[in-house]
Amino acid sequence: MIIDCHGHYTTAPKQLEAWRKAQIAALSNPASGPAKSSLQMSDDEIRESLEKAQLKFQRERGTDVTIFSPRASAMAHHIGDAQTSLVWSQICNELIHRVCSLYPENFIGVCQLPQSPGVPPENCIAELERCVNEFGFVGCNLNPDPSGGHWTSPPLTAKYWYPLYEKMCELEVPAMVHVSSSCNENFHATGAHYINADTTAFMQCIQSDVFKDFPTLKLIIPHGGGAVPFHWGRYRGLAQDMGRPPLTTLMNNIFFDTCVYHLPGIELLLKVVPLDSIMFASEMVGAVKGIDPETGNYYDDTKRYLDALPLTAEQRHKLFEGNALKVYPRLKKQLVRQGAVKTAGTP
Amino acid sequence: MIIDCHGHYTTAPKQLEAWRKAQIAALSNPASGPAKSSLQMSDDEIRESLEKAQLKFQRERGTDVTIFSPRASAMAHHIGDAQTSLVWSQICNELIHRVCSLYPENFIGVCQLPQSPGVPPENCIAELERCVNEFGFVGCNLNPDPSGGHWTSPPLTAKYWYPLYEKMCELEVPAMVHVSSSCNENFHATGAHYINADTTAFMQCIQSDVFKDFPTLKLIIPHGGGAVPFHWGRYRGLAQDMGRPPLTTLMNNIFFDTCVYHLPGIELLLKVVPLDSIMFASEMVGAVKGIDPETGNYYDDTKRYLDALPLTAEQRHKLFEGNALKVYPRLKKQLVRQGAVKTAGTP
Repeated sequence: MIIDCHGHYTTAPKQLEAWRKAQIAALSNPASGPAKSSLQMSDDEIRESLEKAQLKFQRERGTDVTIFSPRASAMAHHIGDAQTSLVWSQICNELIHRVCSLYPENFIGVCQLPQSPGVPPENCIAELERCVNEFGFVGCNLNPDPSGGHWTSPPLTAKYWYPLYEKMCELEVPAMVHVSSSCNENFHATGAHYINADTTAFMQCIQSDVFKDFPTLKLIIPHGGGAVPFHWGRYRGLAQDMGRPPLTTLMNNIFFDTCVYHLPGIELLLKVVPLDSIMFASEMVGAVKGIDPETGNYYDDTKRYLDALPLTAEQRHKLFEGNALKVYPRLKKQLVRQGAVKTAGTP
Repeated sequence: MIIDCHGHYTTAPKQLEAWRKAQIAALSNPASGPAKSSLQMSDDEIRESLEKAQLKFQRERGTDVTIFSPRASAMAHHIGDAQTSLVWSQICNELIHRVCSLYPENFIGVCQLPQSPGVPPENCIAELERCVNEFGFVGCNLNPDPSGGHWTSPPLTAKYWYPLYEKMCELEVPAMVHVSSSCNENFHATGAHYINADTTAFMQCIQSDVFKDFPTLKLIIPHGGGAVPFHWGRYRGLAQDMGRPPLTTLMNNIFFDTCVYHLPGIELLLKVVPLDSIMFASEMVGAVKGIDPETGNYYDDTKRYLDALPLTAEQRHKLFEGNALKVYPRLKKQLVRQGAVKTAGTP
């Protein structure tokens, strides 16, 4: 089984964006905004939005299941207040639940959290519980910068976030550390803000004892870990100079995906980062949509890069399936529950 | 000749830091602060600070000349106002000039700019001219975020910066894009803020026509270009999706150094980035001071990584000397003027 651990619903029917625009237009007077129930889309519209995109690529590329969450750039936690984010998150998560119900063999849900700048993260717990307990979601996306590029929250390792981590550990769900769009003109969203956030989160973890406080907490740092593998020596050296544990210790709780869109990058990732801490992902349909003229293939067809490497069967199994089952403790049961695999044995 | 294009005076005699502390202590009443002339250090103190550090490493590692600038993390443009930064920059630059005068064969100067949050960059022109015309400096360090981690300035590609770029082009000096310390607790300086700034600056350039407006403008993005080489496919794809020119076009004006502290990272850098756009550098004594237990050598002894690669003589010449002479148009004459080389021919 090939599990893609990082996919967003970037192709949702246009009603979703229209609803969000109406919500934003009514920010000064939310009572005049659209009701949740006013968002209407048919199953066929949802099917069509996926059949031509994510499902097509799953089939073409030979992957089986995508761990699927709302569009990251549209989370935009910096817009409005906690109530704005709550309703928007509920809508987006309910839509992911519909997707997983329509295609139970293809998608497993991960939720957006109703974060809002300056609002303590415990406000996200109810929605996280709802998504895990009612919808069968297996993880959440955690935005380390709900301000959208102004970085006004405490570091991810601060006690500020601990109530959420307690709940995540209790529910046995990991978080993918994933920012949203940037309202700071310095940061292009997918070209700077995303990658910077990955790098920033990793360095915060080097400096902190958060995983001593939460030994079972698991954070997925996407986009191959940002700049970290390229600067693996720098981070090993910084940890050493600071008297912190070696990075290999950190990599029991931190996991990188393979959203790196060229073979030399993937080669480096696998060369320096422990293989047990890497999970296959493509983020399709996502940041880069084009075809690489140098290869004739989609940039984000990351499976091809892995297929090009001389990996053992055991290594391939870990990258494509085994590590994901370890990082998402609820995943195996959910795959069975959704009928994506037949028994509770290894899929 | 082996030119290290990225070194900071991180080991200055302790009087420098004491002077800065006194300046900061008097911020609320600058008239009560220390006079510039109160900073006193002997030539022997300066010699001692270098002999045991940068000069020792130059000799041990077999490098010849370092392009040398004030300590980057101490620029701290976010502290005080424009006058604070001006006096502090003058002091730091004058000290670099003393270093270059004491060791004319070992150090070539690059200046700190008196930037200050919210103050237009043209306020830096006088100090830049002084350093280039009076001290023989060959470049400057340009901080894309004088706020120290809050990113409140316009992107580097905005017209806001153009007066400085005009002067740089007129003087024929490049800028190294280099942030300073971070006063945002999210960003560790050398582990996150530096690398994020590199990545951010590159993406800003992808989005912009700044090099159409300034065809001879040269920007050095240090630390191996931040996350960019690891995500070279992502950036090629983003540029393509956005209808921007290929990255190779950009690399006529942007140059990466080799401050990447492990062999696999350097290998990747040289594999994906055009060799004409890479310059040898180590940033010693800098971000990472320790010895890598995996190799027994200093992490920042980057020359070893290059020496380990199967490079042709022409490639080595470009990396260690030729590209630097191209990027710093004033360098060749300055090397002769300082007696680091005997004639105006290729050193």
